[in-house]
Amino acid sequence: MIVIGGPASNNLDERIAKILGVTNIKVYHKLFPDNESYLRLENVDIVKGEDVVIVQSLYPPQDKHFIELLLLIDLVRDYGAKTVISVVPYLAYARQDKRFLEGEPISVKTILKSLSVIGVDYLITVDIHNRDSLKYFKGKGAYDVTAIPVLSNYIRENIGLENLLVLAPDKGALWRARELASRLNLEYDYLEKFRDRYTGEVKIKPKSISVKGRRVLIIDDIISTGGTIALASRESLYQGATEVYVACTHALLVDSAVEKLRKANVSKVIATDTVPSPYSAVSVAPVIAEKLRGIVN
Amino acid sequence: MIVIGGPASNNLDERIAKILGVTNIKVYHKLFPDNESYLRLENVDIVKGEDVVIVQSLYPPQDKHFIELLLLIDLVRDYGAKTVISVVPYLAYARQDKRFLEGEPISVKTILKSLSVIGVDYLITVDIHNRDSLKYFKGKGAYDVTAIPVLSNYIRENIGLENLLVLAPDKGALWRARELASRLNLEYDYLEKFRDRYTGEVKIKPKSISVKGRRVLIIDDIISTGGTIALASRESLYQGATEVYVACTHALLVDSAVEKLRKANVSKVIATDTVPSPYSAVSVAPVIAEKLRGIVN
Repeated sequence: MIVIGGPASNNLDERIAKILGVTNIKVYHKLFPDNESYLRLENVDIVKGEDVVIVQSLYPPQDKHFIELLLLIDLVRDYGAKTVISVVPYLAYARQDKRFLEGEPISVKTILKSLSVIGVDYLITVDIHNRDSLKYFKGKGAYDVTAIPVLSNYIRENIGLENLLVLAPDKGALWRARELASRLNLEYDYLEKFRDRYTGEVKIKPKSISVKGRRVLIIDDIISTGGTIALASRESLYQGATEVYVACTHALLVDSAVEKLRKANVSKVIATDTVPSPYSAVSVAPVIAEKLRGIVN
Repeated sequence: MIVIGGPASNNLDERIAKILGVTNIKVYHKLFPDNESYLRLENVDIVKGEDVVIVQSLYPPQDKHFIELLLLIDLVRDYGAKTVISVVPYLAYARQDKRFLEGEPISVKTILKSLSVIGVDYLITVDIHNRDSLKYFKGKGAYDVTAIPVLSNYIRENIGLENLLVLAPDKGALWRARELASRLNLEYDYLEKFRDRYTGEVKIKPKSISVKGRRVLIIDDIISTGGTIALASRESLYQGATEVYVACTHALLVDSAVEKLRKANVSKVIATDTVPSPYSAVSVAPVIAEKLRGIVN
């Protein structure tokens, strides 16, 4: 097995190859003056007849990272790779997973279909927005792994479990809070939005458990603009929480998300290395490496 | 036939539909906060059972425009288009048309292969960098049309033919100068670089014809950074040319290209609408419309 790090691997390729004890190579890359991507694999002949793992995440600029991934797949196919396994730690366009309105593309379908037809045999994603989307991948197999085990370990060691309440930002994400809480033997709930009957303001609070005097940990898959999390943090503190921590897999942090979280008095944000961010303290390399062992053996 | 204008159609969709007298629809598009593209086709059901032409150029940001094109193709396929014809006036990544070094992708292959496997039946490009690249398209047919007829008309009417000498920037592009010159009954030649034997400077001059006292028209397929054209202009004027005009199909004009051309005393730049630019005075809609008539009938 050979693990190739694309321009948007965020060094996960190195960490995965180290765990598995296999060869790791980096792609040389640059931009042409018109911003087209240039890639090159030195000693490319070593991919011949091999199981080739390409690690390339699709964080912004996601469109550029996607084309680079297509180029890499086509390249290792040209040079005779036996099996192509694409590790996409953060899958872009995954939130457009159905037609919310007629006339919209199912963007995640287009992305996954493109990857399969250009030559990917197996696909690994991490905490994809909706696991059902993997049905659009037409290769030999598509797998989603979760960062919850590695996040749990980090929380146990660095946040502590005393008086900690796990909250999902909405009902749809409750399963994630449940999974994390059950690993750590903690209480969990989800946050509900409601309109204050006197002031008309939008408020947010847990469905059944009071945050008063509790340390709160909000868990989500993606932090994008940070708006929901900032609101949840402010409201939790207002309702008497002593601290608010936030854990997520993909810290996209677009626009002024970092500033928003700071102003909302979030004590600590914990994220993984699927996307580079100032909060990426936890690596998903162990869970990806474990899945790769399962695919190749 | 229905002609759909993608986010990077540069209004060519309207012009083509008008010439052909067919229905034209525009794609609604916006960006999400994390810069993912959102697209929507209103009244999408009209594509069912139709020959659908998607006009989307791949000028920068080329990677974004490429994903948008994939999304559109997949979308009209989902809604039952009978035939999908992709008009890509400017094809990005076309200059990486072979492996200049081992370990490089043949990027134009990856792009054309992706378009065919996602669902394009016929492809039309305009002055693709190398026509041989079209072999990588795996659909029913791929055609390159040339802007030379529409550029010729414009030059005849707006530059005039008197004392005009047509020059290609290098030997490989001589056929283009020949084609333009033969339509206008003009002399033509190509520019050769050489090193001055005394100063060591790189100079440039026509292979066999003197530019002294001549009006010079340099023709190229793409103006990217404008470096070659600026050098050719300065040298031609130095060698006695009275005016320098530049004609091209794709005016990408990256970085400070406009400034460079101005400083090199180019009198006028003539470009087409395959790429939006301040010089896009000529539309390629007529040559594309003619090819579409040929494909559909």
